[in-house]
Amino acid sequence: MTRKQWNLENILPHVATHLPLAALFGMEIVAADPRHSRVRLVGNEHIRRPGGSIAGPVLFAMADVATYALTLALRHEETAVTSSLLMNFLRPAFAPPLIAEAVPLRAGKSLLTYDIRIWSEADGPDRLIAQATATWVAAPGTAWS
Amino acid sequence: MTRKQWNLENILPHVATHLPLAALFGMEIVAADPRHSRVRLVGNEHIRRPGGSIAGPVLFAMADVATYALTLALRHEETAVTSSLLMNFLRPAFAPPLIAEAVPLRAGKSLLTYDIRIWSEADGPDRLIAQATATWVAAPGTAWS
Amino acid sequence: MTRKQWNLENILPHVATHLPLAALFGMEIVAADPRHSRVRLVGNEHIRRPGGSIAGPVLFAMADVATYALTLALRHEETAVTSSLLMNFLRPAFAPPLIAEAVPLRAGKSLLTYDIRIWSEADGPDRLIAQATATWVAAPGTAWS
Amino acid sequence: MTRKQWNLENILPHVATHLPLAALFGMEIVAADPRHSRVRLVGNEHIRRPGGSIAGPVLFAMADVATYALTLALRHEETAVTSSLLMNFLRPAFAPPLIAEAVPLRAGKSLLTYDIRIWSEADGPDRLIAQATATWVAAPGTAWS
Repeated sequence: MTRKQWNLENILPHVATHLPLAALFGMEIVAADPRHSRVRLVGNEHIRRPGGSIAGPVLFAMADVATYALTLALRHEETAVTSSLLMNFLRPAFAPPLIAEAVPLRAGKSLLTYDIRIWSEADGPDRLIAQATATWVAAPGTAWS
Repeated sequence: MTRKQWNLENILPHVATHLPLAALFGMEIVAADPRHSRVRLVGNEHIRRPGGSIAGPVLFAMADVATYALTLALRHEETAVTSSLLMNFLRPAFAPPLIAEAVPLRAGKSLLTYDIRIWSEADGPDRLIAQATATWVAAPGTAWS
Repeated sequence: MTRKQWNLENILPHVATHLPLAALFGMEIVAADPRHSRVRLVGNEHIRRPGGSIAGPVLFAMADVATYALTLALRHEETAVTSSLLMNFLRPAFAPPLIAEAVPLRAGKSLLTYDIRIWSEADGPDRLIAQATATWVAAPGTAWS
Repeated sequence: MTRKQWNLENILPHVATHLPLAALFGMEIVAADPRHSRVRLVGNEHIRRPGGSIAGPVLFAMADVATYALTLALRHEETAVTSSLLMNFLRPAFAPPLIAEAVPLRAGKSLLTYDIRIWSEADGPDRLIAQATATWVAAPGTAWS
């Protein structure tokens, strides 16, 4: 029996099922391969604070969805979990669409460490809204290779 | 003109207006004074992943609401913002109600640093689900004293 | 063959051999059991900046030594390594002796997560100089149980 | 009276005076301008653990020196301090010289947030030893502009 191959086509329905906040907040995954993943937030009425800025937990959810997709693309397993995430909030975000891009800093046997950057499509990645690093860990007993 | 006094009674409607995710995820603030704040998550259909565990961004939102309430209680200002938050995910959370408690590590002139711990009411704080540290910064021009 | 038992008596020479910075900076381990560890910094000419404050990397080294001792006390293994450490610098430190205390937030099968707090003996733990969280990971192939 | 201009030429003696650990551990600053700074560690007998790997606090000290130099290059002030630093340890480091490079993620009015990456000269930046993010804050009363 062959192991399931993960690419964008089958990551999309998997995320739709397992991360319902992605749909709740109006996100879509636009890229996912072993080198990077990218999430686009169009947004809706749930994501804004009065005054119009996008709430911190929504940015956190973008990083969560992006690293989940990247983990599937890298390790072909559904059994990893986030062990920590640090987010630096650099500027308020007023204008979606927003882009979150995750890249691996190291993909090791038991730990995966990612860098995540969030910017607005209008301003581009030279004017970051947030940056994060996250660590994912294989569930006990998982065999990564 | 006297400065607005913040206590639990007027923090509650303020958070309801400014942090709509609190209601979306089914949270309530149950304590807020300069020494600590406490948020209780009863939860609803938005907060779970398939399998039943509570999504990471929901835990992040609990920390966000708790530190927002604590900042109001400490500084009587609405102009501070989160500059960074690190969350350590220690155990999966299956059984709400959950409690998030925030306490100040230091309340300085320009920075406020908090420790936040999340546990389930059933298990209590000796069996943590998540722990976080967060830094809030006064908006430029704000005079804390 | 019985597994080596780690207690303060045999942790001390082990740290002296494996963490030479402990001696270089003038630290001693004063407690190490599965519930907590404590490091005391008397200090010497290497640890100060001009003006007299103790350098950030010295505080980081205190957290490193304290979590190393706690990992030995908890897991009886020399094969774990630090995977991440976040330190919040809360106040300048001018007056050694300083104390660093580490406690486990969670001691899991593959990850150990610690809270570390640093204060001066003169002021006590209600006036923190720094706080950190650190994650240690078992080396691949290690069997913790 | 004109404000002191900071460039590599006068940052070097300043760091030598204010960060004595740079010399203790065998580091030199090889670049410092508003876009990046770079520190090179040749190393000496203080920096190694038995077995030969370079101690975590030494990597932390490299990040400290690099961000200090970058802060001087960006803000022409000696009054900023580190408020937090998260370091992810990605691989053991056995072979100096090591390079630490710091770049600004955001240089704001009261906060400076940096990304720092450490690699060995032999392997290059595609094989990172450590990555960190650090936040520096202006001392109260400082006027950055």
